[in-house]
Amino acid sequence: MSTAEPCYDVAHLGHVELLTNKPQASLDFFVNVFGLTESGREGDSVYLRAFDDYEFHTLKLTASNTTGMRHVGYRCASPQALARRVAAIEQLGAGIGWSDGDLGHGPAYQFRDPDDHIFEVYYDTRRYEPPTAERPSLKNQAQRFHGRGVATRRLDHFNLLATDVGAIRDFLPQALGSRVTEQIVLDTGAVGGCWFTTNNKSYDVAYTRDSTGTRGRFHHVTYAVDQREHVLQAADIFLENNVFIETGPHKHAIQQTFFLYVWEPAGNRIEVANAGARLILAPDWQPVTWTEQERKRGQAWGLKTIESFHTHGTPPVG
Amino acid sequence: MSTAEPCYDVAHLGHVELLTNKPQASLDFFVNVFGLTESGREGDSVYLRAFDDYEFHTLKLTASNTTGMRHVGYRCASPQALARRVAAIEQLGAGIGWSDGDLGHGPAYQFRDPDDHIFEVYYDTRRYEPPTAERPSLKNQAQRFHGRGVATRRLDHFNLLATDVGAIRDFLPQALGSRVTEQIVLDTGAVGGCWFTTNNKSYDVAYTRDSTGTRGRFHHVTYAVDQREHVLQAADIFLENNVFIETGPHKHAIQQTFFLYVWEPAGNRIEVANAGARLILAPDWQPVTWTEQERKRGQAWGLKTIESFHTHGTPPVG
Amino acid sequence: MSTAEPCYDVAHLGHVELLTNKPQASLDFFVNVFGLTESGREGDSVYLRAFDDYEFHTLKLTASNTTGMRHVGYRCASPQALARRVAAIEQLGAGIGWSDGDLGHGPAYQFRDPDDHIFEVYYDTRRYEPPTAERPSLKNQAQRFHGRGVATRRLDHFNLLATDVGAIRDFLPQALGSRVTEQIVLDTGAVGGCWFTTNNKSYDVAYTRDSTGTRGRFHHVTYAVDQREHVLQAADIFLENNVFIETGPHKHAIQQTFFLYVWEPAGNRIEVANAGARLILAPDWQPVTWTEQERKRGQAWGLKTIESFHTHGTPPVG
Amino acid sequence: MSTAEPCYDVAHLGHVELLTNKPQASLDFFVNVFGLTESGREGDSVYLRAFDDYEFHTLKLTASNTTGMRHVGYRCASPQALARRVAAIEQLGAGIGWSDGDLGHGPAYQFRDPDDHIFEVYYDTRRYEPPTAERPSLKNQAQRFHGRGVATRRLDHFNLLATDVGAIRDFLPQALGSRVTEQIVLDTGAVGGCWFTTNNKSYDVAYTRDSTGTRGRFHHVTYAVDQREHVLQAADIFLENNVFIETGPHKHAIQQTFFLYVWEPAGNRIEVANAGARLILAPDWQPVTWTEQERKRGQAWGLKTIESFHTHGTPPVG
Repeated sequence: MSTAEPCYDVAHLGHVELLTNKPQASLDFFVNVFGLTESGREGDSVYLRAFDDYEFHTLKLTASNTTGMRHVGYRCASPQALARRVAAIEQLGAGIGWSDGDLGHGPAYQFRDPDDHIFEVYYDTRRYEPPTAERPSLKNQAQRFHGRGVATRRLDHFNLLATDVGAIRDFLPQALGSRVTEQIVLDTGAVGGCWFTTNNKSYDVAYTRDSTGTRGRFHHVTYAVDQREHVLQAADIFLENNVFIETGPHKHAIQQTFFLYVWEPAGNRIEVANAGARLILAPDWQPVTWTEQERKRGQAWGLKTIESFHTHGTPPVG
Repeated sequence: MSTAEPCYDVAHLGHVELLTNKPQASLDFFVNVFGLTESGREGDSVYLRAFDDYEFHTLKLTASNTTGMRHVGYRCASPQALARRVAAIEQLGAGIGWSDGDLGHGPAYQFRDPDDHIFEVYYDTRRYEPPTAERPSLKNQAQRFHGRGVATRRLDHFNLLATDVGAIRDFLPQALGSRVTEQIVLDTGAVGGCWFTTNNKSYDVAYTRDSTGTRGRFHHVTYAVDQREHVLQAADIFLENNVFIETGPHKHAIQQTFFLYVWEPAGNRIEVANAGARLILAPDWQPVTWTEQERKRGQAWGLKTIESFHTHGTPPVG
Repeated sequence: MSTAEPCYDVAHLGHVELLTNKPQASLDFFVNVFGLTESGREGDSVYLRAFDDYEFHTLKLTASNTTGMRHVGYRCASPQALARRVAAIEQLGAGIGWSDGDLGHGPAYQFRDPDDHIFEVYYDTRRYEPPTAERPSLKNQAQRFHGRGVATRRLDHFNLLATDVGAIRDFLPQALGSRVTEQIVLDTGAVGGCWFTTNNKSYDVAYTRDSTGTRGRFHHVTYAVDQREHVLQAADIFLENNVFIETGPHKHAIQQTFFLYVWEPAGNRIEVANAGARLILAPDWQPVTWTEQERKRGQAWGLKTIESFHTHGTPPVG
Repeated sequence: MSTAEPCYDVAHLGHVELLTNKPQASLDFFVNVFGLTESGREGDSVYLRAFDDYEFHTLKLTASNTTGMRHVGYRCASPQALARRVAAIEQLGAGIGWSDGDLGHGPAYQFRDPDDHIFEVYYDTRRYEPPTAERPSLKNQAQRFHGRGVATRRLDHFNLLATDVGAIRDFLPQALGSRVTEQIVLDTGAVGGCWFTTNNKSYDVAYTRDSTGTRGRFHHVTYAVDQREHVLQAADIFLENNVFIETGPHKHAIQQTFFLYVWEPAGNRIEVANAGARLILAPDWQPVTWTEQERKRGQAWGLKTIESFHTHGTPPVG
């Protein structure tokens, strides 16, 4: 009997497009408090990235009359890998079609997940070229460490809400070649949450159940800092800048990430996190399954999961 | 013109076999000071691993009349990937042949690098099964965090000396599908050092030039801790246990790793390190090249590289 | 008008005597998990200290049929200062009288606070003399950094419950020369909590209101670690050793201490904390007063104070 | 035989006045890179402080044609304590006389140490009153945590060079009531270095021998950060801002401080440090004496003391 080989067609999460109905306040948050750097603007959007993100942007912040995520982009490992993913997605009947790309990347193929979130896959990208004032002292870094605000290092992962997480668990491995690393299986047998990765990070996307039954909502996007102590400092920076801290800092039981959740001014949930030296190196990692009973113990050190974590998503529900 | 696809056949560095002519003292160091856990013994060897290494062993410590590295093992991503690597290595004329495996893994194909270090590739492995007393509280971890000594999380990388690093730079990408992430190119055009990876870690092996002109020597092996503060604590633990600290803690300019180097009792160099949130996610990462002039600036924050770092390897030279 | 001079008669908190009705389990916790070192035994008591406590003991653990604190000792700055304190306490009518001392110190004068907790003041003390195996590498440290368990550095402070915190606020400055650094004043005008210090630490004792109306109860005792990251590591160590984590890690709004609270096996609450570089250096520091409204915001980063923190004390109430 | 009581007349180090012959560059360094906040200007001086310094200023930066320290100020514990210190200093014949004070404090009595450094003692001070934009979220903090540059918390200590450190060791305890906590005694019996404190910090001033035989020179001034990790971050900030890093980060054997030394643009040496939870609480602490032999081991983890640390002082020697 032959073993299916793991799929490495998708290299990494590339960018998230967030909608904001408070564009000036959101931009001020992301640049001056969260510490991203603007690399361009076009139309209603500002393109932002963390100091060691190698691409032109990892966050596209778009003014809108609502909030939430408009789309997410994944970068493939090669043109050939992109072609294979497009073929697989078309076979799933989930495809939308090709777009010409964006300020930060070339042609992208868009598709819908079973909960109607918009994804795209692309290969051609635009590397960030630091202007003189932003050139790093160490040439193996994309931009100087500017130390402004939280000054996160790079985009880490994002989290979506879905009405049927089980359907997502079937879909993403086929569409992106993602592997399931951890999951919550409820007493009913339904999937309560699912964590996926396309590379050695232990997850690049998580889905959790939308208790309101609404489709297509966004839970949070996460940037990584180098040390847990930087998460603690971030908490002080948020405190001093009147940013609403929802929960944390604490350590997740699932994935063991050290986390801190805040809401940016428009209400989108944003996370600062550190995963320590934890990576998924095993090519045949077996998904870790958590029961309802186990989840009742709360986070790693006993913090109870805050109620709004189960209810607040963007856009808000009528 | 077609672009060659990146190769993901090799999943990760699996284990290093170190030789020691002071087996009891070395074992005491690795277990009680460095904080590895013994998982088995056979013949002259003790099998050890860090608390979150998922395999049976990542360090095989073998009593000998000398020191240095006997062999290193890499785990492939699938049986098919292993077959492809064996074919590639045979084509390079570097192959030694198949072994039956070891306590910790199944059949392995052995080969020589151009400097006569012994490598092996394998797929079938034995997962660490914690005895009751070592079961973790969080089921996504291989073993409980025991907190004994330095208590490193996992094997990270190793470093070999070579008489001709340029030959290695040609060889490893063909043999293992490794990518070069950083290198030192001397004013003569010779390669002074080269860092390679097979996955998202920024390197799993480094080669540096053996100034003594001896072949097959070992420079160091490295285990990762979760935070830079743990490297600082490790320094205090080494200090209190009379372990020779060669240099550090400090931050490398190359790869930006926060490092600490010590010599275990038999003289093999061992590193404790933390890389923060830095990963190589770009599938088309371009090697960063450092010149002699740039290297003269020392490490990231100005520490001059200690002389013994260029001369001390194991086994010692005549 | 003359200004009263600040009083420096009391040098520092010396030791706390805790009662346990699970003496073996408590001792195992304090030595193997919390990382204190035993320096002696007498009768039903074991004498313990952290690795950089300079005195023979800072925790006296006494087997009993109940829990809570039997007494607390403060060391005076000189024999003359001790004499002044005894005179002041006698004038307050709070004195019990002289004891011959204990394994770890010489003659002590005992007294009661208004809530019937037993205090003592002393000057003559016994310095910890490390046996050979515990000698530190750096001679400015009391004992080697052994790295066992949480391995706290030194005793920091303790916290008592009182039925009338306002009475304590009047008493301690007169008895010990303590200064009030922070306090909670309820809307009724009653004192809800009060933090005192005799030196540059921002507090060495805190009192909070016993909502059960019981006298003489104990809330917690705290040992300091060097870094906030060590508090996070402590949480993992407690988790792996099945120690009940009540709340934290988080940062207090009051005093800004980074905290973690657990219950040792007999139920006494124990804290691990780090105060960063914060000290009270001003000789005329004005007490910071928090209102009920301000306390409703929770801890520094928004964590709500856990209910048991207001109700659980030792010994338990009927 | 009576025991002399410890003296608590001096509460803490108050401020240092530094001279700079590159006033704009120095000011830019202290405000934008080092992260101090300006609280006022007068004549050729700018008054600066760290975010949790409670006084109006802790650093007075004065434009000059040279570098080094013009004077240092210590705050007494009370008016009575100030009077006692003045009397003691006059008796030593070291007094210069009263000044009217400065922007940041009231009348001060000035005197010379045996190496002709200018000191002053004062009691009346001006507390920092944060403007609206600088008000902290936690009212027990002097100013908001602004996160600008290194963002040190508070002034910690300073270090002077002296031609005869033994004379200083005799003088400071009599003048300020300082206690010697650690010292280096050379094989000749001469004092090579001496560390003094007036409170629970393990030192507020250090003197080391001026190998050039010049009187009145300055070695460095130090501000404290809350965590060792913040010292590491400071190193990156200095690196990115082209600040010369002389040595560190590393841990001192003497006093165990985690240190990082840089030179501000005019050449004055500045330190960022963290002492962990280490305090001198014992009222009868016995000085720790280090021999020449012991000092040859280098810093705590083996780093050799850099040559310029023994030779560079300000002003430079012709």
